[in-house]
Amino acid sequence: MTGVDISLMELERLTLHLLQAIGLNEENAATVTEVFLRATYRGVGHHDVYELPGRLAGLEAGKVKANPSITRINKYHALENYEGDNGLGELCGMFIMRRAEQLADEYGIGLCAIRNTHHLLASTPYVEAAADNGYISYIVTRGTPTMGAPGRIEKVIGTSPMGYAIPTESGNHIMFDACLAYASNGVLAEKAAAGVSVPSYWGLDSEGRATEDPAAIAKGTRQPIGAHKGFGLTILGEILTGILSEGQIIDEQQPGTGLVGMPSHTAICIKADGLLGQRQLTQRTTEMANRMEARAAGLQLPGQRSARSRKQIISKGTIELRPDLVKKLNEWAIKLGVVPIILS
Amino acid sequence: MTGVDISLMELERLTLHLLQAIGLNEENAATVTEVFLRATYRGVGHHDVYELPGRLAGLEAGKVKANPSITRINKYHALENYEGDNGLGELCGMFIMRRAEQLADEYGIGLCAIRNTHHLLASTPYVEAAADNGYISYIVTRGTPTMGAPGRIEKVIGTSPMGYAIPTESGNHIMFDACLAYASNGVLAEKAAAGVSVPSYWGLDSEGRATEDPAAIAKGTRQPIGAHKGFGLTILGEILTGILSEGQIIDEQQPGTGLVGMPSHTAICIKADGLLGQRQLTQRTTEMANRMEARAAGLQLPGQRSARSRKQIISKGTIELRPDLVKKLNEWAIKLGVVPIILS
Repeated sequence: MTGVDISLMELERLTLHLLQAIGLNEENAATVTEVFLRATYRGVGHHDVYELPGRLAGLEAGKVKANPSITRINKYHALENYEGDNGLGELCGMFIMRRAEQLADEYGIGLCAIRNTHHLLASTPYVEAAADNGYISYIVTRGTPTMGAPGRIEKVIGTSPMGYAIPTESGNHIMFDACLAYASNGVLAEKAAAGVSVPSYWGLDSEGRATEDPAAIAKGTRQPIGAHKGFGLTILGEILTGILSEGQIIDEQQPGTGLVGMPSHTAICIKADGLLGQRQLTQRTTEMANRMEARAAGLQLPGQRSARSRKQIISKGTIELRPDLVKKLNEWAIKLGVVPIILS
Repeated sequence: MTGVDISLMELERLTLHLLQAIGLNEENAATVTEVFLRATYRGVGHHDVYELPGRLAGLEAGKVKANPSITRINKYHALENYEGDNGLGELCGMFIMRRAEQLADEYGIGLCAIRNTHHLLASTPYVEAAADNGYISYIVTRGTPTMGAPGRIEKVIGTSPMGYAIPTESGNHIMFDACLAYASNGVLAEKAAAGVSVPSYWGLDSEGRATEDPAAIAKGTRQPIGAHKGFGLTILGEILTGILSEGQIIDEQQPGTGLVGMPSHTAICIKADGLLGQRQLTQRTTEMANRMEARAAGLQLPGQRSARSRKQIISKGTIELRPDLVKKLNEWAIKLGVVPIILS
């Protein structure tokens, strides 16, 4: 990539000001900016600031609320669910993670679900924020049924994107972020663009045949990891989100709009340091990682690549972005009366 | 199979009396019998009553305690962990599930972990028992590192056997029970015995090469479902069990014995009916299943096969067992002074 180096301060300023200019109040703009920066520091180039133009378009079109009125539906001790009021996924996701932290403080473990919200970029920003505060954190999302049951072409369920994080001694969390299909749509598109084949068990073409062509799978049906195993775990994701949030399930339409696939999200936090002490928690997590690495030299553990990217980007103080993104962001800046990124 | 039909009353009586004769007190024998029967009604022919002779041998040899003194290590509101005192896995597993239910009653959600215990047969008996009581239930187990990281031959972690259950309107729970390797050792042995090949991504041979030979994978290294995805979820299982129970992790030796792979188990219960009401919970779970089935006719959902087996066995009042098992059980009966199964 021949990218453009942007200072992190500039990126933060632009994101914050664009969000404010499109209508988010100061607190909400700061929260969403935090989510975008956390996602962007992973250095994956999607499900991060590359989604910001799309978010701004959704807000401008009134498809998503900038300042939703998030209200509680029910509470039973450490279980709570909320109405998301068609709000930004980044706001709703951070809201439930913060509530799960508070519930964990009070009860040791807390579960908070929210319905009628939107895409939240990725799991990392939320679980990372909670692990920064010492919690074992977990988040899971539901959406449109786009995945098949094992060997089946019919799309019966979403892919249950989920993530977790747990703090270690180094401050680099063990951190996981994935959906339960073999491949996200993004990965299939990347592979198709690169002209490479993928394992035939990743999905079926539109006729239900196994194929190594990522474009054919994208037009067909993705398969859950480990067949019935991933399928069963995906259903658990739908239970925790769609059912516990009292939101939509499978192909159910949202009342009023008729939309299918409205996201619900659910966050769980465990205050493990209440049980073990913070020192033992991080010491044992670190030892767990060390013991695996001692058995398999060079082993890649979940979150390590993200942590390296974050460290590198922050120590450099700049991030390389594709020129087309910078152009789009600057167009939005001019449109909304925000100072654009000054390229040196 | 040319099996022997045994009445369920006879099977229950024999199991209960054998366990009492080997030293379990009345209450413990009743609990373990319940676990064995629940496992056996699944009709899978392993991880059930077929393990009973092995359990009796372990108890006789003093490797496992029949009446462990299960004591609490720590508590933080809805989080508890326990010392299993080298007790039977079936006792320790049912103990933590019952405690998780009680914690869920008190806090909405409860997590209970136990260390220094043994194999608990399967996840089904525990999650089924809790779902019978209306809870959303989850259990996960750790053990010896037998699985590789993605593409790696070195065995770095166990397979995180886990299960969950959630009640539906029919009384047949949605119920899941699986490890996070593509194949259990049992499945590999079955495939090898049947002389059939398996997908090459299930594992590596002892030289680290992909192979379709189940026997070669059994001697080599099993792989996690979905590569880094299953691997990350397996690490979460190790965190919930090994770390939260304050037990062993990865290849750590048990203090005193030096044994590697001592199981820890963790149960989580959610009192979802506290949040939604029992009627809405089961109605929505049923609707979730119905909506998937409406999209894919004849779809197999987790727990349906088990439910059919259970219904069939209970309505028949008898179960077909392999003659070699009946022979072994009767040998144990004679040895322990218990009335053997009278074959008609």
